[in-house]
Amino acid sequence: MTSVRPANQEFSREAIEAVLKRRFFYGPAFDIYGGVSGLYDYGPPGCALQANIVDTWRKHFVLEEDMQEVDTTMLTPYEVLKTSGHVDKFSDYMCRDLATGEIFRADHLVEEVLESRLKGNLEARGQAVTPVEEDDQKKKRKKKVKEIKAVKLDDDVVDEYETILAKIDGYSGDELGEIIEKYNITNPTTGGPLAPPVAFNLMFETAIGPSGQLKGYLRPETAQGQFLNFNKLLECNNLKMPFASASIGKSFRNEISPRSGLLRVREFLMAEIEHFVDPNNKSHPRFKSIKDLKLKFLPKDVQAAGKTTISEITIGEAVASGMIDNETLGYFLGRIYLFLLKIGVNPERLRFRQHMANEMAHYAADCWDAELHSSYGWIECVGCADRSAYDLSVHAARTKEKLVVRETLEEPVVVEAFEVELDKKKFGPKFRKDAPKIENFFVTRNQCELEDLAASLAKDLKVTVKVDGVEGDVEVDGSLVSIEKKTRKEHVREYTPNVIEPSFGIGRILYCVLEHNFWTRPEDIARGVLSFPPLVAPSKVLVVPLSNNEQFEPITQELINELRALAIPSKVDDSSVSIGKRYSRNDEMGTPFGVTIDFQTVKDGSITLRERDTTQQVRGSKAEIIAAIQKMIKGISWEEGTKGLAAFVGQEQD
Amino acid sequence: MTSVRPANQEFSREAIEAVLKRRFFYGPAFDIYGGVSGLYDYGPPGCALQANIVDTWRKHFVLEEDMQEVDTTMLTPYEVLKTSGHVDKFSDYMCRDLATGEIFRADHLVEEVLESRLKGNLEARGQAVTPVEEDDQKKKRKKKVKEIKAVKLDDDVVDEYETILAKIDGYSGDELGEIIEKYNITNPTTGGPLAPPVAFNLMFETAIGPSGQLKGYLRPETAQGQFLNFNKLLECNNLKMPFASASIGKSFRNEISPRSGLLRVREFLMAEIEHFVDPNNKSHPRFKSIKDLKLKFLPKDVQAAGKTTISEITIGEAVASGMIDNETLGYFLGRIYLFLLKIGVNPERLRFRQHMANEMAHYAADCWDAELHSSYGWIECVGCADRSAYDLSVHAARTKEKLVVRETLEEPVVVEAFEVELDKKKFGPKFRKDAPKIENFFVTRNQCELEDLAASLAKDLKVTVKVDGVEGDVEVDGSLVSIEKKTRKEHVREYTPNVIEPSFGIGRILYCVLEHNFWTRPEDIARGVLSFPPLVAPSKVLVVPLSNNEQFEPITQELINELRALAIPSKVDDSSVSIGKRYSRNDEMGTPFGVTIDFQTVKDGSITLRERDTTQQVRGSKAEIIAAIQKMIKGISWEEGTKGLAAFVGQEQD
Repeated sequence: MTSVRPANQEFSREAIEAVLKRRFFYGPAFDIYGGVSGLYDYGPPGCALQANIVDTWRKHFVLEEDMQEVDTTMLTPYEVLKTSGHVDKFSDYMCRDLATGEIFRADHLVEEVLESRLKGNLEARGQAVTPVEEDDQKKKRKKKVKEIKAVKLDDDVVDEYETILAKIDGYSGDELGEIIEKYNITNPTTGGPLAPPVAFNLMFETAIGPSGQLKGYLRPETAQGQFLNFNKLLECNNLKMPFASASIGKSFRNEISPRSGLLRVREFLMAEIEHFVDPNNKSHPRFKSIKDLKLKFLPKDVQAAGKTTISEITIGEAVASGMIDNETLGYFLGRIYLFLLKIGVNPERLRFRQHMANEMAHYAADCWDAELHSSYGWIECVGCADRSAYDLSVHAARTKEKLVVRETLEEPVVVEAFEVELDKKKFGPKFRKDAPKIENFFVTRNQCELEDLAASLAKDLKVTVKVDGVEGDVEVDGSLVSIEKKTRKEHVREYTPNVIEPSFGIGRILYCVLEHNFWTRPEDIARGVLSFPPLVAPSKVLVVPLSNNEQFEPITQELINELRALAIPSKVDDSSVSIGKRYSRNDEMGTPFGVTIDFQTVKDGSITLRERDTTQQVRGSKAEIIAAIQKMIKGISWEEGTKGLAAFVGQEQD
Repeated sequence: MTSVRPANQEFSREAIEAVLKRRFFYGPAFDIYGGVSGLYDYGPPGCALQANIVDTWRKHFVLEEDMQEVDTTMLTPYEVLKTSGHVDKFSDYMCRDLATGEIFRADHLVEEVLESRLKGNLEARGQAVTPVEEDDQKKKRKKKVKEIKAVKLDDDVVDEYETILAKIDGYSGDELGEIIEKYNITNPTTGGPLAPPVAFNLMFETAIGPSGQLKGYLRPETAQGQFLNFNKLLECNNLKMPFASASIGKSFRNEISPRSGLLRVREFLMAEIEHFVDPNNKSHPRFKSIKDLKLKFLPKDVQAAGKTTISEITIGEAVASGMIDNETLGYFLGRIYLFLLKIGVNPERLRFRQHMANEMAHYAADCWDAELHSSYGWIECVGCADRSAYDLSVHAARTKEKLVVRETLEEPVVVEAFEVELDKKKFGPKFRKDAPKIENFFVTRNQCELEDLAASLAKDLKVTVKVDGVEGDVEVDGSLVSIEKKTRKEHVREYTPNVIEPSFGIGRILYCVLEHNFWTRPEDIARGVLSFPPLVAPSKVLVVPLSNNEQFEPITQELINELRALAIPSKVDDSSVSIGKRYSRNDEMGTPFGVTIDFQTVKDGSITLRERDTTQQVRGSKAEIIAAIQKMIKGISWEEGTKGLAAFVGQEQD
């Protein structure tokens, strides 16, 4: 498709925001009540775009890869999120201005204030601002500090600030408090002092049931619901490994200060995959299908050196060199890349950034974010982490429910291990009510502990131990307990799978798709165009009768009925404004094809077909035009799809 | 399609529940943590069934009728739900047992206890139980009272009980309290006394933002989000009326005592339509397309007479006779009927029940429920209410934002009305700080009030009024204000639209579709079948290699790739159990078609196709079989779809 989109048009956030608002792609929720920050409603085109992205996701991942999709509840009881670690750790630090009550997210505040001081320093020294790339990355965070004061800083202060900024994601609350105090960081608007940072849990809390006693939260991710159903899902997969579950649904984060539109919101649509894999074998059977894809990587060692240099290499090379931990992780990076391109992401504005050690959860083996570039800088839109066996292990430990895979071994393996034998009949008479505790003590020892106990028994013919809940030392002699090293054959291997988790923030992706596809006609910058791929465009065809002449009405109706019978989403615009205006409106909605009904149609049934980006038109019979549309919404090009149809010039005037 | 499903097979809830659990259609959420009542997770087949029902809904309503779909937030601030009436009225009454702490929903408790006493009375009198129909209707509620005691009641007590049961949905908390006291209703398990009923609001409460000061709720319906966006949606529809918005999403009700599986849950998927219509014209342009559909109606007058007799008449007749209030309401009942049939509802087990006056909200003009029959009785699955102008009016009044339609009149109308003119220059000097309040007093009077004021002015040349926020009487003379009746031509009519709201409980519908399509093979009742229409079946095709002979593997893979490329959801079962067992498993999942690969396939590429319900098989080339499947998943019958293919007998053994 020849695009008339200018190669290097300057992007105007103002222009796209005007279009998104005017066409109601999305808008502030509860707008007529003054809105609530961090909450947005999707209007008809935004909702259709979102539904098409989700539908593409489901086909690309769930159907094509035969994943087990589940729909689990958002309401989640306290116990589950306590076990997963969210109750204790899913929080940000906030500072309150004691005078005004205003609340700041501590890390963002430090970042903004120090950055503005660094900028002021450069200005005072008459130097240029920081390089574009780095500036870009942080653009999204700049809001609070509006005025930059040109104040010169000492060189060592500049160094200290830069060190803090580089490490900003890793500070504890106390450390942030020390920085705030040491560098005299105050409310940027009033200059008033701030209370020390306190942790604020980002989950929305509620009470389940009428008694109010069952504390619950709105889930912060869909992952936990998938982990809890692991055994049932393994069963659904006929006990075969590896397999993946998937879930599409809303999650919630009570952000301290939401901003940047759809990029940081309190309620958002996620699509998450949990791929369960044998920890001893993270190869992937379909790896070869993606291994030759060349992606833009930003690995952790480059970042650690303070650089943002991209390596553009194949996934195969990245896995072979160890840059990507394993094949399965690499496979998903490839699939994520293909998905994003399918829905209209510009590959030049997509990179894969590896998490640095201090960014990752302690249990994570490796983690890569697909970042999309927007006018807010580089935005994390898809995370792809190896969560190891962490989640399944903690839930299993808490519930005493095994969450494991049992694999029948082709060759039994011989295992050597210390085993405990208790003469239980003698425990009761000897230890009375303490007997069960003491028995339990022995059966729950690990191999190292058993080795020590076995040594004592061999030497002294008794062991003296401390048992939880039993007062004083407990002496147990060799007639009650024997501990010996034994060998046995195991026919089944039991293991907790590792989890590779690609996690998609649909709202962030959708916003970046909007930016990547927006441009304005060079001849009239007021005419915005959203060049969505037909696959995700909210509507595929706009039907436009030339005027409101009543002869056009039955033809319009018949055409629209035919399109709908073919499940081609389409709209009519029979308003009285000019054809040109109606097409402009359509371009703003991102509808790829326009069909015009004119007086010639009344005579011979022929109609014209217009392409959104090039505004090229062809003319043909209704059957020909519908056939062309059917081909092109499946991805065939305009040239190919309209082959043999006559070019048409006319009609489009403002 | 010849079905081998027996016509009058007895339904076993136990049997279907075993299948739904075994195949993980759905299950209790947080199962390994002991579960939380009223919360369910959908497993892979349930999730796919749900997605297909939602997809069909979107095509049937949103696309076919060109509705404006929105996706609005679940988190909703207090103010919005205070205005809509939910904060004050969205509650049930609960009674607490002071000794055990157990909580009962008051109306359900009264109902259960009185019903069990009536049953006990019949037993004591040696009479048969109540007629099946009525019993059926209430089956869903019977749980608490497990033992029926055969105790004879006086005839007048029986009458009193029956009157109470007939009116059970209409009692206030105080009235329920009186009944509980008067008839000595206690905790059915312990016999312990209960505290008087208190209102319990059914919304889940939470706090939005870090200060905790913005109280919010999880929405109890998707409707409010649609109303609040009315102006933007009207704009999206090029200001044309009538039009409909639609929304699909989760809503929440903190049920006092959830039960009956998916039928009464705390978190559920809804699909709601708000059709905005001119209150003076509730005709519908497409009414004729559904007017000849014959539905089963249960109108309110029949119910008021204590009967459940069904009128089976056309929608056209029902609207003409005034039984259904208007064409638009009738149109939607027809569309709801067609939708439900499309997704597999048995039309014999679908009726439309009109709400009685005491069931409806005071503002509702008419309301019909599509009820589906299940083993729990008749269940409300779709509500279709005329909500009048209530919601738009209350939000407009609260926010001072006009939510109206402006219609340019072809002929201007002459309007006679009292108009106020104020000489504002004189108000300030005379009333000082009170001036704005007094000015506002005059401009906000309605026509009746203005008529009175005009009369006073004419008589006394002044008026004496009380103004909110101003102490004492305020005297205003005729030099400051004039009020006169004037005639003016209006070119624009301004009105608040009425709303017709079809509201679908997807989980309830899904459950009834499961029941309506479940049966067991007469030759082996352990073999359950779910006869979903191909349109909504979780998967369309199961591919079964005869054995795990490695010659079959590439053929299987190629076939599955072809099916997926055609976007036909399909699965492979290459497990080592017999073909018969694998087909049984498949029947339980409701997959309509099975394809077998055997040694003949290796020789000549031919494959067999099996139909789930009849177990009939045909054989043909891969291309022929795929073509047949493509036709049949679009709704073409087995006979038609497999015409010309040879019948095949063999393979299927247990």
